[in-house]
Amino acid sequence: MRFFSDNAAPAHPRVMEAIAAANRIDTAYDGDEWSRRLDGAFSELFGTEVRAFWVTTGTAANCLALAALCPPYGSILCHRDAHIEVDEAGAPGFFTGGAKLVLLDGTGAKLTPETVAAACDRIRDDVHQVQPAALSITNATEYGLVYRAAEVAALGSLAKQRGLALHMDGARLANALASTGENIADVTWRADVDALSFGFVKNGGLNAECLVLFRTELADEIAVRRKRAGHLLSKGRYLAAQILAMLEDDLWLDNARAANATAQALADAARQRLIHPVEANEIFIRVTADEADRLRGQGFDFYDWGPGEIRFVTSWDQQAEDVDRLAAALAAP
Amino acid sequence: MRFFSDNAAPAHPRVMEAIAAANRIDTAYDGDEWSRRLDGAFSELFGTEVRAFWVTTGTAANCLALAALCPPYGSILCHRDAHIEVDEAGAPGFFTGGAKLVLLDGTGAKLTPETVAAACDRIRDDVHQVQPAALSITNATEYGLVYRAAEVAALGSLAKQRGLALHMDGARLANALASTGENIADVTWRADVDALSFGFVKNGGLNAECLVLFRTELADEIAVRRKRAGHLLSKGRYLAAQILAMLEDDLWLDNARAANATAQALADAARQRLIHPVEANEIFIRVTADEADRLRGQGFDFYDWGPGEIRFVTSWDQQAEDVDRLAAALAAP
Amino acid sequence: MRFFSDNAAPAHPRVMEAIAAANRIDTAYDGDEWSRRLDGAFSELFGTEVRAFWVTTGTAANCLALAALCPPYGSILCHRDAHIEVDEAGAPGFFTGGAKLVLLDGTGAKLTPETVAAACDRIRDDVHQVQPAALSITNATEYGLVYRAAEVAALGSLAKQRGLALHMDGARLANALASTGENIADVTWRADVDALSFGFVKNGGLNAECLVLFRTELADEIAVRRKRAGHLLSKGRYLAAQILAMLEDDLWLDNARAANATAQALADAARQRLIHPVEANEIFIRVTADEADRLRGQGFDFYDWGPGEIRFVTSWDQQAEDVDRLAAALAAP
Amino acid sequence: MRFFSDNAAPAHPRVMEAIAAANRIDTAYDGDEWSRRLDGAFSELFGTEVRAFWVTTGTAANCLALAALCPPYGSILCHRDAHIEVDEAGAPGFFTGGAKLVLLDGTGAKLTPETVAAACDRIRDDVHQVQPAALSITNATEYGLVYRAAEVAALGSLAKQRGLALHMDGARLANALASTGENIADVTWRADVDALSFGFVKNGGLNAECLVLFRTELADEIAVRRKRAGHLLSKGRYLAAQILAMLEDDLWLDNARAANATAQALADAARQRLIHPVEANEIFIRVTADEADRLRGQGFDFYDWGPGEIRFVTSWDQQAEDVDRLAAALAAP
Repeated sequence: MRFFSDNAAPAHPRVMEAIAAANRIDTAYDGDEWSRRLDGAFSELFGTEVRAFWVTTGTAANCLALAALCPPYGSILCHRDAHIEVDEAGAPGFFTGGAKLVLLDGTGAKLTPETVAAACDRIRDDVHQVQPAALSITNATEYGLVYRAAEVAALGSLAKQRGLALHMDGARLANALASTGENIADVTWRADVDALSFGFVKNGGLNAECLVLFRTELADEIAVRRKRAGHLLSKGRYLAAQILAMLEDDLWLDNARAANATAQALADAARQRLIHPVEANEIFIRVTADEADRLRGQGFDFYDWGPGEIRFVTSWDQQAEDVDRLAAALAAP
Repeated sequence: MRFFSDNAAPAHPRVMEAIAAANRIDTAYDGDEWSRRLDGAFSELFGTEVRAFWVTTGTAANCLALAALCPPYGSILCHRDAHIEVDEAGAPGFFTGGAKLVLLDGTGAKLTPETVAAACDRIRDDVHQVQPAALSITNATEYGLVYRAAEVAALGSLAKQRGLALHMDGARLANALASTGENIADVTWRADVDALSFGFVKNGGLNAECLVLFRTELADEIAVRRKRAGHLLSKGRYLAAQILAMLEDDLWLDNARAANATAQALADAARQRLIHPVEANEIFIRVTADEADRLRGQGFDFYDWGPGEIRFVTSWDQQAEDVDRLAAALAAP
Repeated sequence: MRFFSDNAAPAHPRVMEAIAAANRIDTAYDGDEWSRRLDGAFSELFGTEVRAFWVTTGTAANCLALAALCPPYGSILCHRDAHIEVDEAGAPGFFTGGAKLVLLDGTGAKLTPETVAAACDRIRDDVHQVQPAALSITNATEYGLVYRAAEVAALGSLAKQRGLALHMDGARLANALASTGENIADVTWRADVDALSFGFVKNGGLNAECLVLFRTELADEIAVRRKRAGHLLSKGRYLAAQILAMLEDDLWLDNARAANATAQALADAARQRLIHPVEANEIFIRVTADEADRLRGQGFDFYDWGPGEIRFVTSWDQQAEDVDRLAAALAAP
Repeated sequence: MRFFSDNAAPAHPRVMEAIAAANRIDTAYDGDEWSRRLDGAFSELFGTEVRAFWVTTGTAANCLALAALCPPYGSILCHRDAHIEVDEAGAPGFFTGGAKLVLLDGTGAKLTPETVAAACDRIRDDVHQVQPAALSITNATEYGLVYRAAEVAALGSLAKQRGLALHMDGARLANALASTGENIADVTWRADVDALSFGFVKNGGLNAECLVLFRTELADEIAVRRKRAGHLLSKGRYLAAQILAMLEDDLWLDNARAANATAQALADAARQRLIHPVEANEIFIRVTADEADRLRGQGFDFYDWGPGEIRFVTSWDQQAEDVDRLAAALAAP
């Protein structure tokens, strides 16, 4: 029973159907009919004109965005547990040409205007120190916490005031929005987000993510950088079709709601052991080594997350009986 | 009737089936059962121990290889019409951290030991000039010509003698081998090729290419560079499954043979107009502007290739009646 | 008797005096009184507001400028014999983060609007090909030819029209201006040059060159890039003092006139053998291997420049009797 | 009375004489007689075969070394107050092509084997996390503390065991050795240091620093990287001559002893206020804002170093009466 990553889940049947339907002759790269529909579909979703670029990984989406938002000689402020810092093999340094990540603290991997302002204030404004150019936040965070629209707006307002671009790593944005029920526009461009990595792979997609630009004037540069990084697939229609299928009838939200509901059930069962509030689809709990062994002995798969801590991640497709069993096990370990 | 690129063709049904069969839970990234079979499958194919890495584009395969074979301060010798020079948006410069392409001449985009040796000889051996570190050839070439095993071996031998690593861009290696019937080992590692970009997407794949390392000691570095470039997909099983399907029962060769046969039929029809011998699946012919217009008027899609020249590319799935029509049109334009 | 490079010449006594005069306590980096006078001194010289940055090499001046004028994903058009291409160890690739040099032909290493326009026209305007962002010319050229103001203006006008920034490598700009007597403003910013590498080291300096920005809005970026490349010396006053000494009473022009006059004397003696017209301080002549040996036997130092060709470079300090001897030797070799 | 930086001090008379003596014709770049003596001079000093490269800044020395010791996809462990992190404008990222600095804690900017080992242990050994490749320490540290030979050896031994290269930023190595009286070999290569940035500019030099390689097999790469970064000066003799003058009769040690003695005098006077032990030529003390104002009012120049903290740095040339005055002022502020 697999609870170690939403990356392990299969693709949703409607995504598979969309791929099959796209399996016919069309123009190469992103000139096909599916790819050409992306800008419109996302502009409608966000209620403003955006430019949307399919890519195959969140790392590519994040780092293409950061390369356009931060010069090689600038820095990007982020949480010290941010995916771009701890799980992307230094990709931000590669894509930006050597820009620096400045690591901030914050409970549950969340940043606040205070910590961001303090970090900026510590940097002398001279040529000897790397000047900050961008702020990157993850929503939901690496610990499954959710930024509300007002929180993002406060960060966005500060970013603007300090001359920082704002990037959102939304690998689990669907889970965040399914959690709060807030409007996607309020959490992104209305809160001054400049570029969004919109995740689909963890949420029922096969291998398509989307980089959404609210600063549409960056689109030409992103198009070139995507190609130059080897991320312009020659048969892009299979990616675009996946994404369109995810958007259709809000499949992305339905899938996230399913994963979140499962997470809540597990959180309820493990209430006494929670390390972080469970707001999206990740559950971090305290266990002894014996308890962890026992859970594994019962057939549950999960990650160790530091000494005495384990992580469960729920997916759109989690089987009800697996969830019930795990809930029971967590309630009485 | 589409003859402008093999990138436009659909994926082969057996590839689609393989993707569907892989649509179940498994470990993320490349820990799944399909990805773990790749090294073995390619080692068997090549008759020697190799390491194989799925990626989604030929650009990624080429440039990851070049980054491992050439330091940032070195240069890569290639033909001036090589894909890495003219169609990858400067990706070699990005992946290598600024290495230089040195552009050589040669009929039909083929290089010879003489041109390579002469290029090396022109470079002063001091710190003011960029020293060559690698040689990259494309097989079949950008003009559809094929390097025979002996030709590659001659280049490989020279490369070794000059201290150059040898990379082969095999976006259409299948077509090359289908054309000559030579052994894949003879054209690659036995000819001193160090790394091969093995193309599948133009040949019936959906979005999986493969980087094959004959110098297996580079595998760890390539694994890191792939991740760092955003090319380690989180659900790699869908790529590995495609590639395994292509290898099974030599589907890759069958598809290439089909495309080549079509190309030969067209070449026969356009014999008087051929700019290059047709050895794989590309046909370059001389036409007047009027003739080109007339062909388009008849519903044929193709690329202009400089003044008075057009290019047709054939795919594994070309419809016999389309081919007959085009052959007729070319015979009497 | 040394005629192989103007880099071998000693520093001018007034430069040495300036260094000695600067040998006292002052603020570090470029906050000292000499460095703070540079912008004003060059603004006066050019008759317009400029920003001036000392650096220690022409490579640094050239490549800092190019990095600010060309994005990592762009290209720089230059002559195939340009110093940035053949003698800077790939520094443009390093400083720009992987931008590409596109190599053009032209007699005597000079470019014309026609060759530049043709090169631009050959580049498809899509994401697969690297788009040109800058044009770099060398004045005097690597073969000692001089661009007149009208020639630069024609290139500048084309560059503007094509959206290219214009950089001038002026390692020997002093010799060029000493040759034509033209106005320095006419050959640079009035001809749409955006950034100039103004050479002093080959012309009597010790180790100070100057990057002059006519697009002053790039100054902040250049200041950061200079520091980041390790080129912000902690005791900058010794560089600034050299440059100010060179500007004072037009020492830079006097030195160049002396070197040019020597070159003319040698050119007169070798009139029948000249490969290029001698317009500045370089003389390229045809000789047999025997003749070259004989010249060396007589104690003359010079470079071989390809088979049957040798190069002499004259300096500000050349001894009259050495020049007479060499002239005699060249007249009757 | 200037106590804000040893960068502000003039060059030593013997350095000036050496420059004047080098002001004659010689071969360009590093082919001159002074440059060719460097390897030998440093090999003798260190008692082992080394390769020595002049450069003009500590940033260049540090970052050229790090680029050769750490791949673009690796990381460098250093103190969070290390000069390479806080005062080089991101140069390590630029020179390495995007490698990452991992920031460690430690009193007085010193690292210990324990903190280094713990930092390594926190890094998962997989492709998602950047693997450490090098360790960089500063001696004397940014707070004027000194690593003893045994301390460096302990770090060197750990580095070896963990597969890390060891770099020493010795901008003030002279002050460190003048402080401990230890042998220069014991503090460097015998303690497994691979590359040393040997500072001279803060210690009486004009603009020459030296990168010393104990791993001589890296010399060819460093030579190319130096050129490629624009740091191969065309008249290198003026740099080499400075360095040779500093080595002659241990001028470098004498100068450092003078600066250290001054620092001790000030430390004695400010004993109650010291933030760090004074082991080299830097004094950090606690003052109120009023006290700082009063000191400035008396004509003393120094840096603020955070709230309630100020820094004095002493130089080889400090005037005895200035020192007496400052000591008096510090004793009774």
